[in-house]
Amino acid sequence: MKIDSEKQNDIKKALGKRAASLVKNGMIVGLGTGSTANCFIESLIERCKEGLKIEVVSSSTHSLKRAEKGGIPLADMNFITKIDLTVDGADEIDPYNRMIKGGGGALVREKILASSSRQMIVIVDETKLVNQLGDFGLPVEIISFGYSATIFKLKELGYDGELRKLDHELYKTDNGNYIFDIRSPKRFLTPEKDDDVIKKIPGVVDTGFFFNMATSVLVGYANGNVKLRKAR
Amino acid sequence: MKIDSEKQNDIKKALGKRAASLVKNGMIVGLGTGSTANCFIESLIERCKEGLKIEVVSSSTHSLKRAEKGGIPLADMNFITKIDLTVDGADEIDPYNRMIKGGGGALVREKILASSSRQMIVIVDETKLVNQLGDFGLPVEIISFGYSATIFKLKELGYDGELRKLDHELYKTDNGNYIFDIRSPKRFLTPEKDDDVIKKIPGVVDTGFFFNMATSVLVGYANGNVKLRKAR
Repeated sequence: MKIDSEKQNDIKKALGKRAASLVKNGMIVGLGTGSTANCFIESLIERCKEGLKIEVVSSSTHSLKRAEKGGIPLADMNFITKIDLTVDGADEIDPYNRMIKGGGGALVREKILASSSRQMIVIVDETKLVNQLGDFGLPVEIISFGYSATIFKLKELGYDGELRKLDHELYKTDNGNYIFDIRSPKRFLTPEKDDDVIKKIPGVVDTGFFFNMATSVLVGYANGNVKLRKAR
Repeated sequence: MKIDSEKQNDIKKALGKRAASLVKNGMIVGLGTGSTANCFIESLIERCKEGLKIEVVSSSTHSLKRAEKGGIPLADMNFITKIDLTVDGADEIDPYNRMIKGGGGALVREKILASSSRQMIVIVDETKLVNQLGDFGLPVEIISFGYSATIFKLKELGYDGELRKLDHELYKTDNGNYIFDIRSPKRFLTPEKDDDVIKKIPGVVDTGFFFNMATSVLVGYANGNVKLRKAR
């Protein structure tokens, strides 16, 4: 399903506002990365101007800077062991709230945040809802050393795709690694198994699969509605 | 068991020489890291001076430089998908040839090499033979971002230890990550399970466990003997 970009912006704003309304005083909040997360940050800045007291950490410098510019105090991720609430988008989410993330290239840091959070609210428009994960592709972060050997192993196991590029150069994550975007298989019938197999390959840091992370999902629809879906 | 350092040097030299004798013309050879691997490199340089034609890759710049200085041609690891033979040491090895490596801090690169190799010969003196893995500790490479949260998760699961330091600074691997040295549990009764559990933690890149990697093991004894042990 396609939604025109103006409408999509409205949906993202509504999602961001709704998610920001769930943040409470004194929380350490994890900020995701991407255009939907940005709308959340903007709404959060508004709430902080009205008196909300929180501190934030983030999976990207971009989101952190945005928050800081808006006057939200930053916490030091080096000393944080638990985050109260993380709000982030997703590239695909299935009926079991299993997700694929990593389109923005920050999957490892996003997973560190999500897995350290007491609550994770995922905000997506309805185009991200899928019955089976895979159409988006699966981003996999790999160590740059020996990347050809690592990709060779992925392909031997049936996972084909390509190294992500940016401006004709290999894309490097904030952790200094590469992203291999798996394009085949087109759909993952047993994503937990695929995750296990892929992560066992030496040189693989992590995959874009997120399981058992979302505690609730806010879905924005083309008709303007925002609905809450609880994790099963 | 303790072996005095002069004797240990003799054992390492004997091991290096024996391993080098197994290298054949035309091979791409993987060089490990550490004092035993250094003895192998020295013997390999001798063989190359006598006419052996090979190319080498390595898990460390140090070993590569040593080989290059000795006149051995280097291959570019960026384009290598298969290595013919890797020779490396180990910190501990059990009767099933399961190993703990990473004392030198290069475990991720060592595992990429070992897993890309048709053959891996492990060279150890008899002090490295153990019935159960663990006394050495288990090095785990973790992403620097959010390291306190990652260590918190390790400890929650019963894996205690400390971040490796070098000259009062946190030690950084060639991949830009940290090493957490697990000291407790003292012994791993089911290392495969521990490996699975630890690797599932977001932020963990890899562990120092090496399973099903060694195709043969050369053991050097205090009495001067070198014995070959095949993988089961």
